[in-house]
Amino acid sequence: MSEHPTGTSSALRTESRLERADVERAARELAGRIWRTPVLRSDALDDIAGARLWLKAENLQRGGSFKVRGALLAVDELARAGSRGLIAQSTGNHAIAVALAARAHRLPATLVLPSDAPPAKIQRIRESGAEVITAGTLLAERLAVVAEMQRERGYDTVDPYENPRVVLGQATATAELLGQVASEGARLDAVVVPVGGGSAVAGAGLAASGSGTEVVGAEPEAVPALTAALRAGGPVTVPARHTVADGLRPDRIGTLPFDLARPVVTSVVTVREAAIIDALRAAFVHARLVVEPAAATALAAALAHAADHGDDVGVLLSGGNVEPGLVSSVLDGRSSPL
Amino acid sequence: MSEHPTGTSSALRTESRLERADVERAARELAGRIWRTPVLRSDALDDIAGARLWLKAENLQRGGSFKVRGALLAVDELARAGSRGLIAQSTGNHAIAVALAARAHRLPATLVLPSDAPPAKIQRIRESGAEVITAGTLLAERLAVVAEMQRERGYDTVDPYENPRVVLGQATATAELLGQVASEGARLDAVVVPVGGGSAVAGAGLAASGSGTEVVGAEPEAVPALTAALRAGGPVTVPARHTVADGLRPDRIGTLPFDLARPVVTSVVTVREAAIIDALRAAFVHARLVVEPAAATALAAALAHAADHGDDVGVLLSGGNVEPGLVSSVLDGRSSPL
Repeated sequence: MSEHPTGTSSALRTESRLERADVERAARELAGRIWRTPVLRSDALDDIAGARLWLKAENLQRGGSFKVRGALLAVDELARAGSRGLIAQSTGNHAIAVALAARAHRLPATLVLPSDAPPAKIQRIRESGAEVITAGTLLAERLAVVAEMQRERGYDTVDPYENPRVVLGQATATAELLGQVASEGARLDAVVVPVGGGSAVAGAGLAASGSGTEVVGAEPEAVPALTAALRAGGPVTVPARHTVADGLRPDRIGTLPFDLARPVVTSVVTVREAAIIDALRAAFVHARLVVEPAAATALAAALAHAADHGDDVGVLLSGGNVEPGLVSSVLDGRSSPL
Repeated sequence: MSEHPTGTSSALRTESRLERADVERAARELAGRIWRTPVLRSDALDDIAGARLWLKAENLQRGGSFKVRGALLAVDELARAGSRGLIAQSTGNHAIAVALAARAHRLPATLVLPSDAPPAKIQRIRESGAEVITAGTLLAERLAVVAEMQRERGYDTVDPYENPRVVLGQATATAELLGQVASEGARLDAVVVPVGGGSAVAGAGLAASGSGTEVVGAEPEAVPALTAALRAGGPVTVPARHTVADGLRPDRIGTLPFDLARPVVTSVVTVREAAIIDALRAAFVHARLVVEPAAATALAAALAHAADHGDDVGVLLSGGNVEPGLVSSVLDGRSSPL
């Protein structure tokens, strides 16, 4: 695992008009409709990290991930505008979240997932009454299906990366974390957030702006989309190698998330597959939490690097929609990362 | 699974001098030394139960169970009195808790566990620097070793059932749950608590007294120590059949817990082994929580019977110290209860 300072933390944010105040408005819109998930502590994980870790347990959120925040905000707006139906591509959790939001508004929804998406995620979408289509394994393949379906059916797209209300919704998770830690009389030196398409890290940047809390991205070494984008100065498609972190498989970071993240992300940690597996097990054994590999990626980065950032470090445990079979193989020591 | 009304809820409590106000004092003594564990909700579990379940997640507590509450209070007092060392028998979680409390006071501790105690629990005790002795599988065998060691070493006993400060400490878990639910603008119709030696259910009775919240005990059908005691009018030793709920294996309820529980427990649910396993899996899949079988026993009782008690039902998820191998076998469908 290695950490790369971005060296851009002092740059001005000129890429977007979203602001901290928008996050507060978003949080008010969501109040009472999502769980206020707890911020958890673990003595054993603190010992490993050499810092106090504050775990924002969005694995316990409605729909099993923080993505319900952004989906609700985006679908609210589309429903108000008279939408006839919704379509979204996703590695899984955004799709579950859109399905739940669509059901709340009694709108039909079609979700486009990779063909190797975890069956548990597909099942949760179907249980919400939405339609699932699988298409290839690459982001571009899913986007092509979305464009076609949009033309055919006249449905509205809920893009997981480029929709500003999605990013604002995801930002409320970090904003809530900062507030909960403050109410315990502490202040986060940094928050570690998993990076897939980029909405979480962009949201964290918005939520943390002006707080003095650093934003650290964590992505699989196998799919370093943010690292590559920062190096190239803009989103680029990286070779899609396999990672156990199914939620972090997008091979290209979104444009809006990149523009928001670039000036505020102080470093990006690339995490090896074995460290993701180890962190998933550590969450189980030490924190008694079921987390999915995307969340374990952030935890792995925090366990290895939190002490470099200060005494108090937040971790966005982004979701808990994991295949039971994967967890059992991890617990039995049968899981062998590639 | 079957539920037995005790028919004694209106009897006067004359058996003990412990009161609700003592629980509040205990909570103040513990403040800042234990985690304020969250009360969690799950739409999927509510759907199964037909009621709103409020899960007091003491599996996320320091030491992995609510037992640290009582152990800290009891060991505080012994340390103040100049104790030279501590000894306690336990199925596991009380032992972990006493080991942690002893370490906090820099006292040596010896813990006596059944020979078939989960290795994960024994390991946690050793990690706290305490000594572990295993002795048979029955409560009487462990008590004999405690008595002998007490004579030999002059250590003080921290009894998990008969020590009033232990019971008061355990009571703070239910008191905290009632307060947390009230702060959400709701009120519990009942709280379901697992029954082993009885400290949890006795504590719940103390905490709930005067609140109008019913106290429901949940015990394995294989070891119905409270059911048998209520029938006999006093603690009796039941045949010790095997149960996966290692924390609920005590084959006799304590005298103090029985005296406290008898007038306030409105019903006791006996839970089959298969239902315990199913609830452990449901906690994993639907609530993303790692719970041990004792906690799953309470959840199983709530899933089957909560709707009989009202709209809002609390569940004490007592602990999360479970063998990873047991969970993986449950997730893989390999676990076959006897």
